[in-house]
Amino acid sequence: SRSQSSPAAGRLDLSGIYPPIATPFTTKEAVDYQRLEENLQKYAKMPFKGLVVQGSNGEYPYLTEDERVEVVRTVRRTLPEGKVLMAGSGCESTRATVELTEKMTAAGADAVLVVTPCFYKGKMDSRALIHHFTKVADSSPVPVVLYSVPANTGLEMPLDAVVELSQHPNILGLKDSRGDITRIGLIVHKTKTQNFQVLAGSAGFLMAAYCVGAVGGVCALANVLGQELCELERLCQSGGWEEARILQQRLIEPNAAVTRKLGVPALKQAMEWFGFHGGACRSPLQPLTEAETQQLRRDFSTNGWL
Amino acid sequence: SRSQSSPAAGRLDLSGIYPPIATPFTTKEAVDYQRLEENLQKYAKMPFKGLVVQGSNGEYPYLTEDERVEVVRTVRRTLPEGKVLMAGSGCESTRATVELTEKMTAAGADAVLVVTPCFYKGKMDSRALIHHFTKVADSSPVPVVLYSVPANTGLEMPLDAVVELSQHPNILGLKDSRGDITRIGLIVHKTKTQNFQVLAGSAGFLMAAYCVGAVGGVCALANVLGQELCELERLCQSGGWEEARILQQRLIEPNAAVTRKLGVPALKQAMEWFGFHGGACRSPLQPLTEAETQQLRRDFSTNGWL
Amino acid sequence: SRSQSSPAAGRLDLSGIYPPIATPFTTKEAVDYQRLEENLQKYAKMPFKGLVVQGSNGEYPYLTEDERVEVVRTVRRTLPEGKVLMAGSGCESTRATVELTEKMTAAGADAVLVVTPCFYKGKMDSRALIHHFTKVADSSPVPVVLYSVPANTGLEMPLDAVVELSQHPNILGLKDSRGDITRIGLIVHKTKTQNFQVLAGSAGFLMAAYCVGAVGGVCALANVLGQELCELERLCQSGGWEEARILQQRLIEPNAAVTRKLGVPALKQAMEWFGFHGGACRSPLQPLTEAETQQLRRDFSTNGWL
Amino acid sequence: SRSQSSPAAGRLDLSGIYPPIATPFTTKEAVDYQRLEENLQKYAKMPFKGLVVQGSNGEYPYLTEDERVEVVRTVRRTLPEGKVLMAGSGCESTRATVELTEKMTAAGADAVLVVTPCFYKGKMDSRALIHHFTKVADSSPVPVVLYSVPANTGLEMPLDAVVELSQHPNILGLKDSRGDITRIGLIVHKTKTQNFQVLAGSAGFLMAAYCVGAVGGVCALANVLGQELCELERLCQSGGWEEARILQQRLIEPNAAVTRKLGVPALKQAMEWFGFHGGACRSPLQPLTEAETQQLRRDFSTNGWL
Repeated sequence: SRSQSSPAAGRLDLSGIYPPIATPFTTKEAVDYQRLEENLQKYAKMPFKGLVVQGSNGEYPYLTEDERVEVVRTVRRTLPEGKVLMAGSGCESTRATVELTEKMTAAGADAVLVVTPCFYKGKMDSRALIHHFTKVADSSPVPVVLYSVPANTGLEMPLDAVVELSQHPNILGLKDSRGDITRIGLIVHKTKTQNFQVLAGSAGFLMAAYCVGAVGGVCALANVLGQELCELERLCQSGGWEEARILQQRLIEPNAAVTRKLGVPALKQAMEWFGFHGGACRSPLQPLTEAETQQLRRDFSTNGWL
Repeated sequence: SRSQSSPAAGRLDLSGIYPPIATPFTTKEAVDYQRLEENLQKYAKMPFKGLVVQGSNGEYPYLTEDERVEVVRTVRRTLPEGKVLMAGSGCESTRATVELTEKMTAAGADAVLVVTPCFYKGKMDSRALIHHFTKVADSSPVPVVLYSVPANTGLEMPLDAVVELSQHPNILGLKDSRGDITRIGLIVHKTKTQNFQVLAGSAGFLMAAYCVGAVGGVCALANVLGQELCELERLCQSGGWEEARILQQRLIEPNAAVTRKLGVPALKQAMEWFGFHGGACRSPLQPLTEAETQQLRRDFSTNGWL
Repeated sequence: SRSQSSPAAGRLDLSGIYPPIATPFTTKEAVDYQRLEENLQKYAKMPFKGLVVQGSNGEYPYLTEDERVEVVRTVRRTLPEGKVLMAGSGCESTRATVELTEKMTAAGADAVLVVTPCFYKGKMDSRALIHHFTKVADSSPVPVVLYSVPANTGLEMPLDAVVELSQHPNILGLKDSRGDITRIGLIVHKTKTQNFQVLAGSAGFLMAAYCVGAVGGVCALANVLGQELCELERLCQSGGWEEARILQQRLIEPNAAVTRKLGVPALKQAMEWFGFHGGACRSPLQPLTEAETQQLRRDFSTNGWL
Repeated sequence: SRSQSSPAAGRLDLSGIYPPIATPFTTKEAVDYQRLEENLQKYAKMPFKGLVVQGSNGEYPYLTEDERVEVVRTVRRTLPEGKVLMAGSGCESTRATVELTEKMTAAGADAVLVVTPCFYKGKMDSRALIHHFTKVADSSPVPVVLYSVPANTGLEMPLDAVVELSQHPNILGLKDSRGDITRIGLIVHKTKTQNFQVLAGSAGFLMAAYCVGAVGGVCALANVLGQELCELERLCQSGGWEEARILQQRLIEPNAAVTRKLGVPALKQAMEWFGFHGGACRSPLQPLTEAETQQLRRDFSTNGWL
């Protein structure tokens, strides 16, 4: 395997910080692999545990299947030894997810991040989700990480489904993007015998998530302030809570700006300010308005980042 | 054109009832074109205005693009002269929607039904949606019908976007599946100079929608009780409100059962009871439990349909 | 009894239009009984079925119990023979509701409108609500009308509770303010053997509610455009659906402005424009901003009312 | 003043744990002052910072104003020197809140906890809430603590209103019961120059709240497991994070059971098991069903508390 030692029974150790990398496009909205690689070279110098490719911030719903796989292949070529490549392979149907998971593995993924299917949200109860993720995990050549992101899917993975799925030998953990810290604490509590690994899905509650037992974070903001998020991780891991709190507080507003408030277009704009290639999104995502750009800048500058 | 006369400026007249047809699968979850055609032969005898292919009840998010197009092609071959084939061609990205719209037209669609993109719901404001639907309508060889279905997408098309898009010469109408009757009345009111055609997206509020100015309905329940829904249409159109009310009331619970409460698996189960091929859904949609099947039966039988 | 004949078993006939009257205040925020009476004299000339006193638009949560009763007493003195006085008597606890119901009856109410308790909304399931309304109806000297207004309470009365409570001999009907027309149709359907009377709680869906079987409406907008709402009722009752539709459509935006969008302060501002005493609300309700006032005016003027 | 030294400018120091005490009733639903005092004697032996009287768990919406004041008076008589008595004085109208605040002060409150008015939730924007709380704080003889509890009110105090109100010299802090830890961290960050004191409104996220800068908690569960919550506080304050995490995790399910899942009736049932007087709630709150009681017991026993 390409990635490092794991804590128990040869399991992949997920602990650490991951940027869910953005996908740069050319002015014609084609994937810009050249700029992607330039970003990757910069990320290679940061103490990330790995990269998430095709998370929500990668605009994966706007990519064709071929593009999704090709982006993963590109990242694999560039990624230094020992870094984890976690690839999003979730689709609406179980069969499509199984197939894409295989392709992602062939393209070099160390693990797959599988979002909850969500179109028929009224029917995506624990029974359906347990069935779906079990089928996917049964057939996946690499470990599976569950992905619950209600802001996009309108659906939260039920606690009992998480607990049951945590017992599957090929399901390693959960990326939780809502940030209900009570729920995160309870998931850690109820899965502790499985050594289930919870990743905070946003930088806004990263410190609190560490506090209640998470092992890392997949944070959009790591595309922009990667070094700082790794420093926050180090402080949390080493008990530097006072210093961590001050750093965490300065990250909340910039994080909200590039996620909940202004979304991927803001993330990509901020990347430009911090020396990365961001650029435009695929349509229908629109560029920021002038007022939004100013608000974004303010959310960084009032916290001392610009 | 394959379809009939239109009320103004050569516009396609959408008025009438459409079943959003279900997609039968084999036991191995392959599309069962044979059974699909058998259903189509039965629907051909009913006074539908046309068929919607790849609406939410067609499990389109679980079909590959090739399957989506092939199902439309199959329906085109079978559909009698003069019936409208409305094909779902909505995707998350504008570019994919434009491309699929062309393929659907080539496969024989008379109009396309384009659902709101929804993954980045926080960013799908009027600006983004107007941009998206304008691009799609600009390039589409056939007329476009907007499709707002918040129960699945978590997103309602804003009123101001509907009003602005109603002025596009290639956007004919809206399928509204939430059923906020105040909003439907207001949409009819504010688009009346465009002769914009509103279709009720569910049988539960069909009569009320006619009452406030809708011209028809795309109703899951028409897969099961098609004749009855066409009769309800006739009563509403001819002023038989008392009789209509009694019929409408008997349809609410069966309709809720096959949509909001128990979803596509229930629709397909009920189709079996009424002589159509329903069968299983693609995973992760699960078969009904025994208790759910009984509840479904009760919702039909207590209203005198079984 | 002060009110008129009823359709079955001596039951009070609720059919018709009711303004849920606003409460005028002096500049010191005291109840202005003088101005209240002047409004009542104007309403007396309109073909209302009666008045609702202490509905949400009466700012009842801001009145003391003594004020609530005194306002009802004032209305009773002024109300012409044959008009129905429906008084809001809902409180959070069952015991307080029972007591206030008695006081409202003593003050002259013909019926009481009892809102769902809502503070402990997570516990206000059918069991609790059936218990509450049964106790209140058991002890009330006058008939009880259920009141479901989720925009204020965050709670919708469950359908099964409505159906069960409809069998209570002292529970006559329901004021439904959300306007889910499918639900309203179903309530009418499932309570028809009880001759249960459903009142639309807003002018936005009044015509559609008549269409599916409601018998009248309690409409904030009737404080402003009372004559027009009574005309809409007449058209719906006499089968003038085409004319009704045109009138209904012109009322949706003014109605939304004085309810959902801008609330009681807008209702009171519009009352001033149409010759009634509106005035300021009690704090914390704030006066409209200049921009809001303009928006309000536009919602009336673009529909031809100003 | 009855309470202890404060950190800055003579401000009352709120830091610590408070049970929001339950109100025992007799079998006839009268307030049982005798049993209340017996509970108070037990609480007196615990290292609480003080008591909250008439929080949501005190069933204050079901008490008359006289009862609300009398309960505070009773607590004052019993409360040991140096403990803080925080009394709920929030009403829907500003004028009623001002008056009740004065009565609560006269009855012995050291501070008042003022919930957001919520009936006209669509109009309770920052402008209205800032106006309301400023008026109340201007006139209040004792310091004011803001209280945001969306599970009951359906309304969250907007961040910008909190930040502006934090500058009022008589507004000391906020009880936040939703537990969005990102928001709590941001409130601490943006009010730090005011030394604004944030209290966690539930035991489920108490440790995480301390982690991001809260100074204490008002926790329903402290009525049952008061000693344990004070121990959790001590561990958080002294940097015993590992031990704290284990204790916190064991408290999440019991806490959820007595709050979100089963509410005040469950809190009172659990109090009985742990040696306090709980008893029945006022109607319409219903006793637990047998199944609910078993679920409650399980939530305590599987975490080692029973």
